Amino acid sequence: MEDDIRQLAQKARTAGHALSLIPAEARKAALLETARRLEEIGEPLWAANRKDLETAAALGISPAMLDRATLNPGRLASMVNGLRSVAALTDPVGETFDGATLPNGLRVVRKRVPLGVLAVIFESRPNVTTEISALGIKTGNSVILRGGRESLETNKVLVGLVRAACAESGLPEDTVQLITSTDRALVPQLLRMDDLIDLVIPRGGQQLQNLVKEHARMPVVYGGIGVCHLFVDSSADLARSIPVIVNAKVQAPSVCNALDTVLVHREVVAELVPAMVRALNEQGVQVLCDPESMSAAVNAGLQNELLAPAGEGDFGREFLSLVVSVKVVGDLEEAIQHIAQYSTHHSDGILTESYTNANRFLDMVDSAVVYVNASTRFTDGGQLGLGAEVAISTQRMHARGPMGLRELTTYKWVVQGDYHVRR
Amino acid sequence: MEDDIRQLAQKARTAGHALSLIPAEARKAALLETARRLEEIGEPLWAANRKDLETAAALGISPAMLDRATLNPGRLASMVNGLRSVAALTDPVGETFDGATLPNGLRVVRKRVPLGVLAVIFESRPNVTTEISALGIKTGNSVILRGGRESLETNKVLVGLVRAACAESGLPEDTVQLITSTDRALVPQLLRMDDLIDLVIPRGGQQLQNLVKEHARMPVVYGGIGVCHLFVDSSADLARSIPVIVNAKVQAPSVCNALDTVLVHREVVAELVPAMVRALNEQGVQVLCDPESMSAAVNAGLQNELLAPAGEGDFGREFLSLVVSVKVVGDLEEAIQHIAQYSTHHSDGILTESYTNANRFLDMVDSAVVYVNASTRFTDGGQLGLGAEVAISTQRMHARGPMGLRELTTYKWVVQGDYHVRR
Repeated sequence: MEDDIRQLAQKARTAGHALSLIPAEARKAALLETARRLEEIGEPLWAANRKDLETAAALGISPAMLDRATLNPGRLASMVNGLRSVAALTDPVGETFDGATLPNGLRVVRKRVPLGVLAVIFESRPNVTTEISALGIKTGNSVILRGGRESLETNKVLVGLVRAACAESGLPEDTVQLITSTDRALVPQLLRMDDLIDLVIPRGGQQLQNLVKEHARMPVVYGGIGVCHLFVDSSADLARSIPVIVNAKVQAPSVCNALDTVLVHREVVAELVPAMVRALNEQGVQVLCDPESMSAAVNAGLQNELLAPAGEGDFGREFLSLVVSVKVVGDLEEAIQHIAQYSTHHSDGILTESYTNANRFLDMVDSAVVYVNASTRFTDGGQLGLGAEVAISTQRMHARGPMGLRELTTYKWVVQGDYHVRR
Repeated sequence: MEDDIRQLAQKARTAGHALSLIPAEARKAALLETARRLEEIGEPLWAANRKDLETAAALGISPAMLDRATLNPGRLASMVNGLRSVAALTDPVGETFDGATLPNGLRVVRKRVPLGVLAVIFESRPNVTTEISALGIKTGNSVILRGGRESLETNKVLVGLVRAACAESGLPEDTVQLITSTDRALVPQLLRMDDLIDLVIPRGGQQLQNLVKEHARMPVVYGGIGVCHLFVDSSADLARSIPVIVNAKVQAPSVCNALDTVLVHREVVAELVPAMVRALNEQGVQVLCDPESMSAAVNAGLQNELLAPAGEGDFGREFLSLVVSVKVVGDLEEAIQHIAQYSTHHSDGILTESYTNANRFLDMVDSAVVYVNASTRFTDGGQLGLGAEVAISTQRMHARGPMGLRELTTYKWVVQGDYHVRR
């Protein structure tokens, strides 16, 4: 089994070498061809997906996971669109930067080249399969995919389709490979192959990330875990703050940039909390309050099943659902302290009219994305202008926050001389 | 013991937080104060270094290692100069880039911030102690140093001096800490503390790198191992190529960017090899020839103890001394093949007058630095215009090739809105 995986990784390496020399035009054509085939495939894909859903149901997988594994015409259309928009992006490969002619006449420039071989380990959602394939092809990287077993048949069809499109466009078929064995021991084996794999991206929860941390010998981009905060300062425009809080929580509650905890300046508790709780409750959000904010809500006559006391475990918790915790703090410094302790350093923001406090928050809060007067939901490659998104990195090296195409490349130094020697 | 190391790492984390908010001016002052103190320290430093050298001699350490561990007035002066030149560099912290106002009015910019806590594991040379301390202070990162036991006393004095200068300039003392225990088990312990250490830089040989690869849970920058090639194409100006080859080999034979293997196009063997071997021999370089280049040398009447046949193990070998291997290849493609197989992807070059071959070499050879008509010795942060050098990375993520100050930072996304919500 380990031999099979090693062979697969070797094929990825060979494909990666070939791919790095294939012009952008051909790589773009492969993406458009994939989109075309995906639009036309129809029944074979639906059948595979039905089979996956049956298996998943039999395995007793949660309704949320089942939902994520389900394909429908709307999701398929958005996968097709995704392929076309990646195809349309500017190719970062070959871009040069920091060029200079040195005082001794040496001409130096850095040139972006593909990273090489990416291994992406992910769960359920089949749209990740086409999305990661597209990003790999676009950036000249070969890709090894390991999806969840609840999407195996769907992924087989999708990867088959990508490979056929690659072959038709003059790219190596092995540009994209799917690991079809569901043996869990394969992942640690894969993670030891640092001679063949340049980057691992685990797209899943804490358990997967820990497994990768334990075994990976190659670089890894971790991400996707966001315990996100908004601090409502005493100077904030409260009426305008509430829609931001609601948006950060409800616009897509199951994703990493959704709001988890609202910190409220003590001076505005009485004014803000009742209205905020009402607005959140109206959207079906359960609000878990610390004693002080709870008093404010209760004093305002609020009492319902969507209002409950927060336990200590409700701070620093990623809810991924329509639940939010609320805590009162004495001042900006206490808010910064709370965030330093509980945040996963993904996305944290302040709502304020104070110029000084805004700047102090931006300086002191060390998260991938820090906000003033905006929803944490903007932490997204598409929203922040990258065109596409590979992952949202919560680590500090190589890429932080939303990762776009450029972050899937490295560079080489190109030095041209006239028989230069160093003195 | 593990508790002590954890405590030390925690102090580094705390110092790192404080340091990231200390203005560039104060950090610069700490560097200048370190330089001043180093200039003045005198006897306590010499005494510590003598003690180290005695211990090292008793331990039976190699003459090369002993030499590297030895301080003298010249080396001290260059350490002092090093501190002053790092102090004079532009501070990358706070630099912003890729700023934009998005169509929805959100203002987005990326801002460089320190990485956090660096752990540097290195051997013998005490100049690394002040150099890494300086780079850490300059970039707002706290530093944990683990040097060789043959430099322990010297390092204690140096780090004591840096810490005193930090304290005097308003920086935390724990900006720089030295691990003084020589227990080898400490390194694996340190490498597990990914919650406290942001980056590990092992500055040592393959054995150290393997140890780090095995145990590190945090990002690592590997580097410093260079099996470097120059390919002499048939169109090269041979008379001008020989000085480049000699320079690449002899200007500093014990470092990673020194030349290890010359590949010679078959068409120019008879003309190049005798003159090249003579020029190298004159500089005391032993030349290990493959059969074809050996014939050319022998046919030209060369025969001496600095000319010997190359074994298979002499290709892909980092000599780190006045030895070079020579191999004849049939064409550019064979040279590219050889480099793909044997290079450590550090620094590789072509000597040619062919425009087409130069470009093909630059495209096909995937090394950190690729050269046309220049010595591999230019792979150096100072030489390539970075001002300082942290390490030469042979990995692909985060930084490739010479790493300067900028590569010791990360960035955060700063997003400013007017109570923006995502639609």
